[in-house]
Amino acid sequence: MGGTEKNETAPALKTELAALFGDRLSSSPAVREQHGHDESAHESAAPDLVVFAQSTDEVAAAVRVCAAHKVPVIAFGAGSALEGHVNAVRGGVCIDLTQMNAVLAVRADDMDVSVQAGVTRRQLEEYLRDTGLHFPVDPGADATLGGMAATGASGTTTLRYGAMRENVMAMTVVMADGSVVKTGGRARKSSAGYDLTRLMIGSEGTLGIITELTLRLYGRPETVASGICAFDTIEHMVEAVTMATQCEIPLARMELMDDVAIFAVNMYAGLENEVAPTLFLEFAGTPTSVADDIERFSDIASEFGGKGFEAKTSLEERNKLWRARHEALYAGKALNPGKKGLITDVCVPVSQLSDVIAQTRKDIEETGLITAFVGHVGDGNFHTTLWVEPGDEAALKTAQGVIERMVYRALDAGGTCTGEHGIGMGKMKYLAKEHASALAPMRAIKKALDPDNIMNPGKVLAV
Amino acid sequence: MGGTEKNETAPALKTELAALFGDRLSSSPAVREQHGHDESAHESAAPDLVVFAQSTDEVAAAVRVCAAHKVPVIAFGAGSALEGHVNAVRGGVCIDLTQMNAVLAVRADDMDVSVQAGVTRRQLEEYLRDTGLHFPVDPGADATLGGMAATGASGTTTLRYGAMRENVMAMTVVMADGSVVKTGGRARKSSAGYDLTRLMIGSEGTLGIITELTLRLYGRPETVASGICAFDTIEHMVEAVTMATQCEIPLARMELMDDVAIFAVNMYAGLENEVAPTLFLEFAGTPTSVADDIERFSDIASEFGGKGFEAKTSLEERNKLWRARHEALYAGKALNPGKKGLITDVCVPVSQLSDVIAQTRKDIEETGLITAFVGHVGDGNFHTTLWVEPGDEAALKTAQGVIERMVYRALDAGGTCTGEHGIGMGKMKYLAKEHASALAPMRAIKKALDPDNIMNPGKVLAV
Repeated sequence: MGGTEKNETAPALKTELAALFGDRLSSSPAVREQHGHDESAHESAAPDLVVFAQSTDEVAAAVRVCAAHKVPVIAFGAGSALEGHVNAVRGGVCIDLTQMNAVLAVRADDMDVSVQAGVTRRQLEEYLRDTGLHFPVDPGADATLGGMAATGASGTTTLRYGAMRENVMAMTVVMADGSVVKTGGRARKSSAGYDLTRLMIGSEGTLGIITELTLRLYGRPETVASGICAFDTIEHMVEAVTMATQCEIPLARMELMDDVAIFAVNMYAGLENEVAPTLFLEFAGTPTSVADDIERFSDIASEFGGKGFEAKTSLEERNKLWRARHEALYAGKALNPGKKGLITDVCVPVSQLSDVIAQTRKDIEETGLITAFVGHVGDGNFHTTLWVEPGDEAALKTAQGVIERMVYRALDAGGTCTGEHGIGMGKMKYLAKEHASALAPMRAIKKALDPDNIMNPGKVLAV
Repeated sequence: MGGTEKNETAPALKTELAALFGDRLSSSPAVREQHGHDESAHESAAPDLVVFAQSTDEVAAAVRVCAAHKVPVIAFGAGSALEGHVNAVRGGVCIDLTQMNAVLAVRADDMDVSVQAGVTRRQLEEYLRDTGLHFPVDPGADATLGGMAATGASGTTTLRYGAMRENVMAMTVVMADGSVVKTGGRARKSSAGYDLTRLMIGSEGTLGIITELTLRLYGRPETVASGICAFDTIEHMVEAVTMATQCEIPLARMELMDDVAIFAVNMYAGLENEVAPTLFLEFAGTPTSVADDIERFSDIASEFGGKGFEAKTSLEERNKLWRARHEALYAGKALNPGKKGLITDVCVPVSQLSDVIAQTRKDIEETGLITAFVGHVGDGNFHTTLWVEPGDEAALKTAQGVIERMVYRALDAGGTCTGEHGIGMGKMKYLAKEHASALAPMRAIKKALDPDNIMNPGKVLAV
């Protein structure tokens, strides 16, 4: 059966793909190795062949060839995933979509944009610069929009604008048989049939390959103000965040860094932030509404022991302020030279956040590891990175144990094993635990849409 | 094959259901007739039996019996759908969920609520009255929340808060084999596995029966202000709406009534609104932000020829003002005594809205029918009702022709055959046109999850 174990690609397959792609087919070790991993510590697994597609038709043609040979197909964008999403664990053909990087149409009146899947987040931001519009979903890395849709990406602005799930209106998808399907549409809402758009979002290339997307755009806010606020405990911070949310203060961003994270970035970037659990905030709107929101938030923060709060509106000051948050991962790397980082995330109901972080921190301290916590506190989503010496199997096992207990703690608290990193090859076991009753319908859908299991096999569901 | 044509239920089926439901099983003609239709003009089709379930386990038991006999199962809530969603076109067993009307838990800190599927929108609103929280999705009718999820309902506040799709966090669903599946969770976001929650939303009971739901809640705004603004043309109104949207004015509601609709409600309810295309608005936030938003909107409205705009904040004045919008359907009924109304909706990109309405209006005028247009203008979604004398087959055919041309016009404009009413038995042909390329995967999913086609057969997909 294709896809059930590591495939050796048949010479005929290569010949057929070469006829379609010419010198955009590669079997060079360097190209294959580059396409065999994402940014995670999961073991690299190179595909047998890489093709660089330039159109939906080419993707469809490549998938048809792979389907005929029952050989795995893996879509590849920026390679910035974090759970081994693109690693070719059963070999096969990698379809690189980065040459499909055209912005197809911006419709300012309807506030939407159509792009090819290989357009990156920053490329789109640049393209929209003069339109007064923006696309807000920001997963940190400069991922491709196709990859962001396939992994259900979110980020610091999800609090206000939602994740990819809320912002993809329509898609072109190449299915496992090479057929081309259009999902959704350009109407702001529809109740016409099954929601294939959202079924594809977060399916991580296991149900089809997204080749084009239509996305919602938003007006750029007139005024943006940022501020940071230290608290004595994460518990008090979460109480302030809960109150601000209940009061419907329309924050654009609300990010947590714990004291260890603040200490690390102070060291790394020569900053002088107070070493305490710190909330990073962004307000956006008109000058009047932003001033109003800041005043309301300041009242709430001081009620819960916030240690003073001052908002900055100039771009320069805001960039300086956010630098601490943006440098968190690099600071961690710098403090752990030569080590590999096991990056993970969970998401819990906000009321459970401070307990789950406190217990996880205690657990980590008991292992002798050191780590920092950063997170999207308004969503209850947090990240941590565990640094391990390459080759130190004992430390790796310890770190994996910490992650496992963190996931189970999140599940016990009514949360999810991943808020935004996805399942990939790294969290299949936890998906099976979290959604035990839903595995059967998930498998039935996978089997119905990809009967030979050629679409990114060995991910999401261990079919 | 079960479900492929009208079934006569076997005596054994009735005996088995009677053992489970006792006197909560009914085969009386009146009960069956009451469960054979929604609020649309589609031909009534009574189920053979009706059971009144009180728990997920009872729903699962009933479905297992039906599955064993390969007999259709139709879930029934308030019966307020508009495309024949519940009509038992192939007979079978109707599962009435209205006795599953418990609010299971309100979690104020996490701003979510869990309910049984039979809880209605107004019941939940009443229940939440003292919490400072509210659930915003408002499809007009006092539908059950299970029905609202199953049909992917939306309404006047979708502009600000999204539709059911954006506000259901988790579900308990009984599948076609009687298994019970939990989808989603209470974390604000998750990228764990396939999004079964959104696959079920809008599947209209054809993939499973929703028995419990967890919903997002929102803080009640401190201040609400409403106002109406007449324009000389719908085109100018849409231009103002587009500008307000691009400027990110966070309107809570933005509703259109055309001059015919205004004339009708004036007649019906003794109102004296200017007979012109009119925009109904609602602003919500703090006193400061609402004042700011009103000022910004007023500037925009006057730029596009809005004929004066005054906002009211008292509940009494707001209710008086919104009365015109709420009475629109009743006004139509009163002006067309004894006729049946063919209610329909489409949704288009906002830039296409005034053209599509103008062409549809011209088309209707040429048929000699009279109709009014109302709609959720910020979403590009509008409704119309065509009034037909019962038994007048020619008029019925004319009205159906108007609807068909309106749908094709919407599709040509990049829109959808239904923004919020759904497919049911009424729009299957248009779904097939709108999503021609997506029909194969939709059918594959239906077949995978309901191989014997017992779940509300003859709806959504003409499988």
